[in-house]
Amino acid sequence: MNKEIVLTGDRPTGPLHLGHYVGSLINRVTLQNQYKQYILIADVQALTDNYQHPEKVSENVLQVALDYLAVGIDPEKSTIFIQSLIPQIAELTIFYMNLVTLNRLKRNPTVKTEIQQRGFGEQVPIGFLAYPISQAADITIVKGTLIPVGDDQLPVIEQTNEIIRTFNNIYKTNIFPEAKPLISKASRLTGVDGKAKMSKSLSNAIFLSDSSDELNKKVMKMYTDPNHLHVNDPGKVEGNVVFTYLDIFDNDKEKVEELKQHYQRGGLGDVVLKKYLFEILEKLIDPIRKRRELLAQNPDHVMKILKDGTEKTLKVAEQTLSEVKNVMLLKYY
Amino acid sequence: MNKEIVLTGDRPTGPLHLGHYVGSLINRVTLQNQYKQYILIADVQALTDNYQHPEKVSENVLQVALDYLAVGIDPEKSTIFIQSLIPQIAELTIFYMNLVTLNRLKRNPTVKTEIQQRGFGEQVPIGFLAYPISQAADITIVKGTLIPVGDDQLPVIEQTNEIIRTFNNIYKTNIFPEAKPLISKASRLTGVDGKAKMSKSLSNAIFLSDSSDELNKKVMKMYTDPNHLHVNDPGKVEGNVVFTYLDIFDNDKEKVEELKQHYQRGGLGDVVLKKYLFEILEKLIDPIRKRRELLAQNPDHVMKILKDGTEKTLKVAEQTLSEVKNVMLLKYY
Repeated sequence: MNKEIVLTGDRPTGPLHLGHYVGSLINRVTLQNQYKQYILIADVQALTDNYQHPEKVSENVLQVALDYLAVGIDPEKSTIFIQSLIPQIAELTIFYMNLVTLNRLKRNPTVKTEIQQRGFGEQVPIGFLAYPISQAADITIVKGTLIPVGDDQLPVIEQTNEIIRTFNNIYKTNIFPEAKPLISKASRLTGVDGKAKMSKSLSNAIFLSDSSDELNKKVMKMYTDPNHLHVNDPGKVEGNVVFTYLDIFDNDKEKVEELKQHYQRGGLGDVVLKKYLFEILEKLIDPIRKRRELLAQNPDHVMKILKDGTEKTLKVAEQTLSEVKNVMLLKYY
Repeated sequence: MNKEIVLTGDRPTGPLHLGHYVGSLINRVTLQNQYKQYILIADVQALTDNYQHPEKVSENVLQVALDYLAVGIDPEKSTIFIQSLIPQIAELTIFYMNLVTLNRLKRNPTVKTEIQQRGFGEQVPIGFLAYPISQAADITIVKGTLIPVGDDQLPVIEQTNEIIRTFNNIYKTNIFPEAKPLISKASRLTGVDGKAKMSKSLSNAIFLSDSSDELNKKVMKMYTDPNHLHVNDPGKVEGNVVFTYLDIFDNDKEKVEELKQHYQRGGLGDVVLKKYLFEILEKLIDPIRKRRELLAQNPDHVMKILKDGTEKTLKVAEQTLSEVKNVMLLKYY
């Protein structure tokens, strides 16, 4: 067993989709066999975005947990926990807030982009602006050293390591090891519309919980080549979402190559092609869906898994915060 | 017993002085007989200013507690507690951070002035910028309704009430009553130099723990009338710190009036006048000092008082946070 500690997780704002699957979930199923792995259901962080709709967050904690278990995350190997039940994360965030300036937060490229996208400007809620600080607390409370991220999230790791170095330096300690990013190759799956990254909010997502019918409908509406009007016309492969997905999800690379050539020279209709992709995806999703349905019949069992993981994390968090308070001289009796 | 709940406290960055005594401590001794009173030793907030020197904070927690008990704050009537031992304050602060924008914080007149004084600009640490949010958490975690403040701190109460209204409105609840300021008449005692408000950092303070000798030296160096060079010269009373103090600390108002007239017409020397003030102050401070010395011989007993108060507060804080999590739908098992 390697000594690295993996910390990863999701904001529970909806069920997970194929983008999550290729971008992080399958990695986690592998990582749990190599490392100690913590998986955070980040309800507090989800609220920075959704504080006016807390039901959106709380309802999805179970949904996300179902997705985790259905794809093969094993609670015997991975520790799944709920953020709001670890008060030490909040305490650590407050301490870290002294170590980061307003200017530094505003320069964080990820946050900067998100503030622009949402049109916040100076009206940005402090909780949203400061979420990289709370992420540093998420990572360090379990002393995470390997953080799976998309390349767009590298600034989060940088910010965390800046905080770690400042903390270790001011409080003359080395309790926190620096965190290393583990960059996911397939971090951005295109949505079925072909326009943007798959995302629940853009309604272009295929969920791991989609029924066979829903999956079929989504594949049939998938963006292909808009100029491929007749079966016999030559079609384009680049930007054609069906081929993007086949490249990722079909293990028979020879067959995909054949289909591409057929499509490009004409004679291969979109419907036939999509039926083929549907079968590939159905073969992937069907067992996940079945395990998910089975698990969903016993939500108490799933919540018990979260409770156990949270209690295990709580012990680690208590230990870390005790070390933090020691070096910050916050021990009184 | 009135139903109002008083929340007050201090940042433990040094022993308390006469400015604290007239500005808040004597009020607390009165208030504890009329209301349920919580007194917060705000070590976490003190760190927003002193995070690079945590020893300054931790060493002064005991000092501040000694001052409290020595002036007559009665742990049977007032609940004294240590901020860093109430994790619910940090949790509540994080939730409140979603309800306050960057712009709003920057407009807070108290914070604005303090940022200017320290020359922070955009380099202000987030913890410092956000301290009014954490103060709202301090107040609401015990559901404080009466907050003794100087008139320079009114914006803190305004910010707290804005947060309370937003919280109650979004989460459709009324768990938090609004807070009312209790403005202290004598909130700013001039320092012995006559230049500014009494403050440890300006070295113009008379501490409740000063020895008789230290007190005497400080009174003898007190700012009077710089043009009053000879005993027989007429002297000025306005801006003369000795008279400022006599007005506040000498209960014999007739005697003070006599001294003022004598000083103004000439013939009353500074040394004689200062000896008189020294006696007045010594009569006030001596019993405080003696009680303080006695208490200081048994620091374990004092820490036990803080522990009991903190544990009592912890129960209230747990209850409040449970209500908060209920309305925010953060209850899972």
